[in-house]
Amino acid sequence: MSIHKSARIPTRTSIERFRRNAIESQVSIPESEWEYLVPHLVECRFGKNDYLISAGDVADNFYFILEGLARFFYSTEDGKEFNKHFAVENGFAGSFYSLVLGAPCGFFVQALEETNTLVLPNQLLRELYERHPCWERLGRRNAENLVLQKEAREKEFLLDSLETRYRRFLKEYPGLVDRIPQYHIASFLGVTNVALSRIRRKINQG
Amino acid sequence: MSIHKSARIPTRTSIERFRRNAIESQVSIPESEWEYLVPHLVECRFGKNDYLISAGDVADNFYFILEGLARFFYSTEDGKEFNKHFAVENGFAGSFYSLVLGAPCGFFVQALEETNTLVLPNQLLRELYERHPCWERLGRRNAENLVLQKEAREKEFLLDSLETRYRRFLKEYPGLVDRIPQYHIASFLGVTNVALSRIRRKINQG
Repeated sequence: MSIHKSARIPTRTSIERFRRNAIESQVSIPESEWEYLVPHLVECRFGKNDYLISAGDVADNFYFILEGLARFFYSTEDGKEFNKHFAVENGFAGSFYSLVLGAPCGFFVQALEETNTLVLPNQLLRELYERHPCWERLGRRNAENLVLQKEAREKEFLLDSLETRYRRFLKEYPGLVDRIPQYHIASFLGVTNVALSRIRRKINQG
Repeated sequence: MSIHKSARIPTRTSIERFRRNAIESQVSIPESEWEYLVPHLVECRFGKNDYLISAGDVADNFYFILEGLARFFYSTEDGKEFNKHFAVENGFAGSFYSLVLGAPCGFFVQALEETNTLVLPNQLLRELYERHPCWERLGRRNAENLVLQKEAREKEFLLDSLETRYRRFLKEYPGLVDRIPQYHIASFLGVTNVALSRIRRKINQG
């Protein structure tokens, strides 16, 4: 695949960063399982505006983000874009739809900065699930955390004012407000740029 | 707990219904694991309007619904209610927030009909995860399926017209439209009863 032209053997630091993610999920990975995994890992760098995943394709990989950031977005037939998620350092980018159902992904994932990743092929993940229960546990914990995130977002759409949702965005993605254009945030919150500007002015004056 | 006053030993049919759920998730449970689980299972019946879970409490159990249906809803301080989910036969009712974080649940789960369930104590689920990888796998599959559901709902909130969302509700919950009052559906879709009536008339005339 062309996106893997830039594939490189990962540094020791990169692998340690990824390992910390498992530790933070309170999953203990036996040394022998790490030793199996590590030779399968490659680093892949994406340029600004490159696509990690394209809608309509069955996504082949999950990516663990070492540096940079990516937005997940839907694109409609009339060319409108709707941001659904941002993944930053130590987060994952991938499609559960493709991983679980082997079906085409419905959204795009695009690097908004030069982004360095560890590549986790879906095929490798499926193989790990068969190898050892520690990987099942890591998969379960990551899926559960995603459920909690999506549940919080569902609650916001049902209940919360734009101001509450914007304040939560600032808390959930610290520093991101300075790294991406405001229209990407407005799209994530499902409002116009004008409505978001009004709220920002209100917050800054308060 | 008072809700377990009506706890009874489950019938063979109930246990088989629950077992089919695992089979449909393509998880193979060894016979010895079923034999361990079954004596831990009880059936619990809830009357119409009874609460399976109350917001503010740490939920103790997941419930597998044998018969009946439940709505999940948020209640705001000024007394407004927002439906987030309906669980029907062969579905689960519970709080991942309480299961994963041991923290109070943010929503209510209420039976809308007389509802018969198999009780799955969170404590038992945690114990099963330690016992055998088949339970980790079942947990992972169920969490992944919930991610796919929540992702579809997120997409709807961002992109879809009320008509599209109502048509999806009819497809996702076949027959439910005849079992619950329309205002519960309007609340699930995040619109007023009047707006939903307009769409229903339009669809019926089309």
